[in-house]
Amino acid sequence: MKGAIAQVNPKLTVIDITHEIPPQNLAAARFCLLDAYGYFPDGTVHVAVVDPGVGSNRRAIAIEFEHGFLVGPDNGIFSGVLSQSPAIAVVELTHSQYWRTPQLSKTFHGRDIFAPVGAHLASGVPLRELGRTIDLATLLQLDLPQLIYTPTEIIGCIQYIDRFGNLVTNIPGSDVENRSWTVRLGERIVPGCQTYSNVSPEAALALVGSHGWVEIAINCGNAQLQLQQHWGDRVEVVISER
Amino acid sequence: MKGAIAQVNPKLTVIDITHEIPPQNLAAARFCLLDAYGYFPDGTVHVAVVDPGVGSNRRAIAIEFEHGFLVGPDNGIFSGVLSQSPAIAVVELTHSQYWRTPQLSKTFHGRDIFAPVGAHLASGVPLRELGRTIDLATLLQLDLPQLIYTPTEIIGCIQYIDRFGNLVTNIPGSDVENRSWTVRLGERIVPGCQTYSNVSPEAALALVGSHGWVEIAINCGNAQLQLQQHWGDRVEVVISER
Amino acid sequence: MKGAIAQVNPKLTVIDITHEIPPQNLAAARFCLLDAYGYFPDGTVHVAVVDPGVGSNRRAIAIEFEHGFLVGPDNGIFSGVLSQSPAIAVVELTHSQYWRTPQLSKTFHGRDIFAPVGAHLASGVPLRELGRTIDLATLLQLDLPQLIYTPTEIIGCIQYIDRFGNLVTNIPGSDVENRSWTVRLGERIVPGCQTYSNVSPEAALALVGSHGWVEIAINCGNAQLQLQQHWGDRVEVVISER
Repeated sequence: MKGAIAQVNPKLTVIDITHEIPPQNLAAARFCLLDAYGYFPDGTVHVAVVDPGVGSNRRAIAIEFEHGFLVGPDNGIFSGVLSQSPAIAVVELTHSQYWRTPQLSKTFHGRDIFAPVGAHLASGVPLRELGRTIDLATLLQLDLPQLIYTPTEIIGCIQYIDRFGNLVTNIPGSDVENRSWTVRLGERIVPGCQTYSNVSPEAALALVGSHGWVEIAINCGNAQLQLQQHWGDRVEVVISER
Repeated sequence: MKGAIAQVNPKLTVIDITHEIPPQNLAAARFCLLDAYGYFPDGTVHVAVVDPGVGSNRRAIAIEFEHGFLVGPDNGIFSGVLSQSPAIAVVELTHSQYWRTPQLSKTFHGRDIFAPVGAHLASGVPLRELGRTIDLATLLQLDLPQLIYTPTEIIGCIQYIDRFGNLVTNIPGSDVENRSWTVRLGERIVPGCQTYSNVSPEAALALVGSHGWVEIAINCGNAQLQLQQHWGDRVEVVISER
Repeated sequence: MKGAIAQVNPKLTVIDITHEIPPQNLAAARFCLLDAYGYFPDGTVHVAVVDPGVGSNRRAIAIEFEHGFLVGPDNGIFSGVLSQSPAIAVVELTHSQYWRTPQLSKTFHGRDIFAPVGAHLASGVPLRELGRTIDLATLLQLDLPQLIYTPTEIIGCIQYIDRFGNLVTNIPGSDVENRSWTVRLGERIVPGCQTYSNVSPEAALALVGSHGWVEIAINCGNAQLQLQQHWGDRVEVVISER
């Protein structure tokens, strides 16, 4: 993909956000892009390729939003970003003069369509040149279950597990700010803390992580392995006082 | 290596093709470079270092070919690229003024010779300045077994296994184009398909992959683990009709 | 972090030294930076983030030294580099106008402080602008045990294990130069060699590695796994003659 970008314009700066998305894990890709886009300069072109539907009739799309552009498959991978910053315009990528030619693969549109289209966008080609405009409402959505709020609890789930084994929930950090709180994971109760160093090495803690969500970690350890938790597992935040 | 390149010329663009070659696996390195070089701009300098013979009398070389330059050990690592696009000129790297000095390591010529030589080439130093010209015919070759063609079968092998566990054979995709075909792997028969979505999740399929070769995959799975296959294992394509 | 750098100055060149430091392994980070800094151009800004004390009262610092700048936590991560090339000036990072704002995380100062501060330094902001000057003598040190020299032995330890499983000791290569020597690891004796190809495949050897230290390896194998060695394990070099 980087070669295909350099063939379009060797002067572009390319930054890898991650190549550690577990195979076909759209939820992880959705989260990582949501988590990262805010840290890039306005006008950045984000190319994302977790694409289990390649070769089916899923659409290839490019999206303009307030802070830049999104290029990839229409499979919900961008629905996290768009939940925070809505699409301004969307095209289906139908103009093959902006693709890599002549050997279009049926299995790797990242290299053959998305990377060169992203390079053209970053080089100044207008969005509307890349294909036909489509209705924003037709984009495929990939949404998490709604949080459940009771007077004393917030019930959510693990939406992401990072490479250190930290368990990132879908409960926003702002929900626990300035409160006393604990987390219930199955039978286990984990204390809500300000920082890793609030507990001893090897102890479990919950905190508002660098992603801005409530997350569960083991100080100097791996929470995924040591607490035996999985993607989507239920997490309850228990508020004891304001 | 990237520091050594920046010491020669900090304005060069460096792209990583892969750091996931299994240790000492020259066949994998040969394949990855063959697979990737065509996607880079003409004039690109490709530096490749899988170098089990470092410290022995294997030669260090730089090659000019139609689409750019190749720099690395003379151990066959470039023989895939050269099978498609022959060498125009070759030098043995004997001019140490283009190496990193003064501490030449006996174990990491990538950093001490190949990276700085590649940086000098990319900065405009002519090939012939880098050492003494050698005979193209003396380059070490690393060749795969010849394919066997019968009226109804093509017998090849697994030449590469990617990080998703997909099994890439040495049978060109053009051999199965517009035909009905299956693949025999030991006792197992796998259908020849157009795309992943032709089969159910967890089912095995064969298709012409993004690399342009017949490959065997599991839809949303890992063929290497689930089919228990290895590098070099025999693969038979069975043609049932044209 | 790369996004945060690009937000400060999208024209900076960013090179990854490594993302393979085992979690919280400060000794590994100290070694990798010591090993790499000499291969970068003078004036390079090195940002290093292995930061188990984030959120505690450990200081965030930037250091000027002869060959460039160091930015990261004050936890000893730079003490390898500084043992070879002393600090010229140090500031505690107290001027938040050079940080990423407004959402400062309690758990990821790499993204929120160190990356943007490094980007400002690389863009020409003077060190003294970044915070208040502190006394060099107050920097936290992270030192290895002293080597023990007897008339016939040098006793050290394994200070680093690379991704190939090679065991890098803290015994300098210059201590064995032009000598006949062996290495004792527990019950095992390993011959001192010039290069991998001095022994058969699968045999253990000791040599002066590309890092400039005595290291123990298996030719075409993994010494960590096959010799069952760990970080910090005792290593004895036995000199048999000069």
